[in-house]
Amino acid sequence: MARTRIAVIGGGVIGGGWAARFALAGHDVAVYDPDPEAGRKIGEVYANAEAATRRLYVAPLPPPGTIRFEGSIAEAVAGAGWVQESVSERLDLKHRVYAEIQETLDPEAVIGSSTSGFKPSELQQGARDPGQIVVAHPFNPVYLLPLVEIVPGPDGDPRAVEWARTLLSGVGMHPLVVRQEIDAHIADRFLEAVWREALWLVKDGVATTEEIDDAIRYGFGLRWAQMGLFETYRVAGGEAGMRHFMAQFGPALKWPWTKLMDVPEFDDALVDLIAGQSDAQSGHRSIRELERIRDDNLVGILQALKAKPWGAGETVAAHEKRLRELSFAGAEAAHDLARPLPLHGATVLPEWVDYNGHMTEFRYLHVFGDATDAFLTYIGMDAAYMAGGRSIYTVETHLRHVAEVREGRPLHVTTQLLGHDDKRVRIVHVMREGEGGAVLATGEHMLLSVDTKAGRACPLAAPVTERLAEIAAGHSALAAPDFAGRAIRSI
Amino acid sequence: MARTRIAVIGGGVIGGGWAARFALAGHDVAVYDPDPEAGRKIGEVYANAEAATRRLYVAPLPPPGTIRFEGSIAEAVAGAGWVQESVSERLDLKHRVYAEIQETLDPEAVIGSSTSGFKPSELQQGARDPGQIVVAHPFNPVYLLPLVEIVPGPDGDPRAVEWARTLLSGVGMHPLVVRQEIDAHIADRFLEAVWREALWLVKDGVATTEEIDDAIRYGFGLRWAQMGLFETYRVAGGEAGMRHFMAQFGPALKWPWTKLMDVPEFDDALVDLIAGQSDAQSGHRSIRELERIRDDNLVGILQALKAKPWGAGETVAAHEKRLRELSFAGAEAAHDLARPLPLHGATVLPEWVDYNGHMTEFRYLHVFGDATDAFLTYIGMDAAYMAGGRSIYTVETHLRHVAEVREGRPLHVTTQLLGHDDKRVRIVHVMREGEGGAVLATGEHMLLSVDTKAGRACPLAAPVTERLAEIAAGHSALAAPDFAGRAIRSI
Repeated sequence: MARTRIAVIGGGVIGGGWAARFALAGHDVAVYDPDPEAGRKIGEVYANAEAATRRLYVAPLPPPGTIRFEGSIAEAVAGAGWVQESVSERLDLKHRVYAEIQETLDPEAVIGSSTSGFKPSELQQGARDPGQIVVAHPFNPVYLLPLVEIVPGPDGDPRAVEWARTLLSGVGMHPLVVRQEIDAHIADRFLEAVWREALWLVKDGVATTEEIDDAIRYGFGLRWAQMGLFETYRVAGGEAGMRHFMAQFGPALKWPWTKLMDVPEFDDALVDLIAGQSDAQSGHRSIRELERIRDDNLVGILQALKAKPWGAGETVAAHEKRLRELSFAGAEAAHDLARPLPLHGATVLPEWVDYNGHMTEFRYLHVFGDATDAFLTYIGMDAAYMAGGRSIYTVETHLRHVAEVREGRPLHVTTQLLGHDDKRVRIVHVMREGEGGAVLATGEHMLLSVDTKAGRACPLAAPVTERLAEIAAGHSALAAPDFAGRAIRSI
Repeated sequence: MARTRIAVIGGGVIGGGWAARFALAGHDVAVYDPDPEAGRKIGEVYANAEAATRRLYVAPLPPPGTIRFEGSIAEAVAGAGWVQESVSERLDLKHRVYAEIQETLDPEAVIGSSTSGFKPSELQQGARDPGQIVVAHPFNPVYLLPLVEIVPGPDGDPRAVEWARTLLSGVGMHPLVVRQEIDAHIADRFLEAVWREALWLVKDGVATTEEIDDAIRYGFGLRWAQMGLFETYRVAGGEAGMRHFMAQFGPALKWPWTKLMDVPEFDDALVDLIAGQSDAQSGHRSIRELERIRDDNLVGILQALKAKPWGAGETVAAHEKRLRELSFAGAEAAHDLARPLPLHGATVLPEWVDYNGHMTEFRYLHVFGDATDAFLTYIGMDAAYMAGGRSIYTVETHLRHVAEVREGRPLHVTTQLLGHDDKRVRIVHVMREGEGGAVLATGEHMLLSVDTKAGRACPLAAPVTERLAEIAAGHSALAAPDFAGRAIRSI
């Protein structure tokens, strides 16, 4: 997708998260926020977002867009194709902001509001061009959670919805277009219902904030991360299905299982009670620390869901595929064939380290395996080649673990072609801590071309052998590393 | 923990899940359910549970307990130390069942009820020994979700609560003792609030069942799997913390964001609407298929949370540690030192396979790395040894990938000691598809003893070298495999 100029109006946690997501996807962002602290705050969100995004995708990210701060709404929105409004939840304020935006904004551009509760028809009241305004409601952390609720409202312009879908899918999100406007859209209605009930439970002394969190995260929270409400219940109903489940649990609707509409008095005593319990529960960790834990867990959960892929993991898998295609499209021309090829980089993820804080043995081969994949794509063995019934398998590997590396460190791999014939390719990878850094490990690999249907060795196809010959000509001037062709010695 | 006789009264999805969890933890289970289909149903749940449990823990499971079916409550509960009641949610039925149980049950045993909604004081009404009955409310799938709400009620016996805690922690659960009884305990109050709101959204045509599920699983569901409600909001409040968050969102409590107490008419039209939408959403997959997807996703999410460990991942990590200790405690005497050591097994997990359905290259080393860990524990290099400031690192590895293997297949690894000196250990692993099956891969590894503080090689400590000498004496009669000491050849 082409780079789009993005304006972010309001630079709090949500606006900052949007700015980071857009910039990390390669779009240039202009921010307007009168808060003199906005720059520092967005910088902190961006640092979290960059670390998490690099961990989430096993693919190179595009060159990031710029984030610049403007002194007025007019300057921020000039030339923008999308405006994301994330100011406080006050309707009069939002109306004033839209009036100012629409004085300058390109009529083809769209304004997305991060509002949690207002209906689009309320936002559009009195606007110069009501159809230009839609709800685009994200979820914190904006740079990691894929969901964005798009609500056009009765006066919405279908082109605005289409542009929202295209732009936001392109930055790795899952746009959910809400067919009928309603206070709080969809997701926040559930959050609100749970929040009210939770306040009652704390106020009545039934449970503390920590016990409530545990009741969620050790139980149904794990279900909801993947299937939501109805599909979970469908499965629970067993072979008899949804009707059976409903027949069984329908009657409970009439029982006094929730306080619900009966809103607790939101007085200082309740605020003190909850804030005090929350301090007891989480106060031993700083917010920055909790943010990192949250982000690491989210990355881990998203990657677990990517395995199928399923739900949010599907969104991540699709975006990762796009990132890889973009990256390889530009790579071919850039490399100097007289040197080992710098085709792969990675970051040491939290789940890659053992209890000592060092990267676990098998993750070295994980990184080398990804480097081999990058090399294969580079020589033209892409999905189309594999679809033709030929693939290439690693048949032998020799690893030398030279040094340890800690969580969060950057890994940089270069690849040298040692030899090839009609069926085989022999390569070495060298892994360094950052480009030009200390050598961490080396990998020597023998790859064999395979006819995947017949399940036996077969010749490599012509475009690939030609590409290999080209690289071999370049790499012929390089000496083979001294560790190549060595065996493990007896003791 | 000693094996306990468990009685499961009521063998539906929940009772079956309990039976499977107890049996897979090594307890013998007696089931009573008058349904002639109960045996088949529990067999299906057990098959799912066994596959999921083997995938969840990177540790050998204990020999499973038996599950037998009895013709009466009296026969099922005779000799039991714990009775899990999971009959239908009808108070009169539960009272009749408790009366029958307490005619036979050991006075020291405890009855845990799976009830979603009844308070313990209601369950205890008219019982011969009210203090013997507690709520022990699990979450489906019982064999994977760690949460169990323990509610003793005002007449509960503290010894019953203590026994519930000990027994249920011992089968890998997270017991949450609820301090004050209330209809629907804690978690189901939230589920009920969300369920009511969701019924309204479907009835009013605001969203379909699929859109509601997506609004949960692409957004806040991912947050709730790890932190729950309050800690998530604490982080969202940023440095200003919980008070700031509450000040910002408190007012929304008064807004019309939910229908809540206003219960929708639960008529046939609503059931048809929801069942129809659910068919459209999920009907292309059977319940069995959805169960497997759900379980695979839960295993993946739990393993992602195990990396820190955090939340439910902490429960899994603690149980895994217990399983390993149990397994190694019995292993020493069992092995024949004249043969390669069968110290490690694993199952090919869904996230271990690539798009071709084969185990990915680096997972072979993952399994060999775990086999090396098992070998190190076997020779006495346990946590206590490492705590002494010495560890052992793999410095060189030679892998041969001989054959492919698909998801779900069992892997069996044997380990042969090729040599050792005062600082080094040289081993080979052979990976087969099941015990005695076809060879999938071989791994030759050189390990080096390291002083972890000084960061350099150091001699192995005496108990370990003695153990190595013992194994070497046994393995000296074995020929070194022909692939050992080989290098990758040039082409």
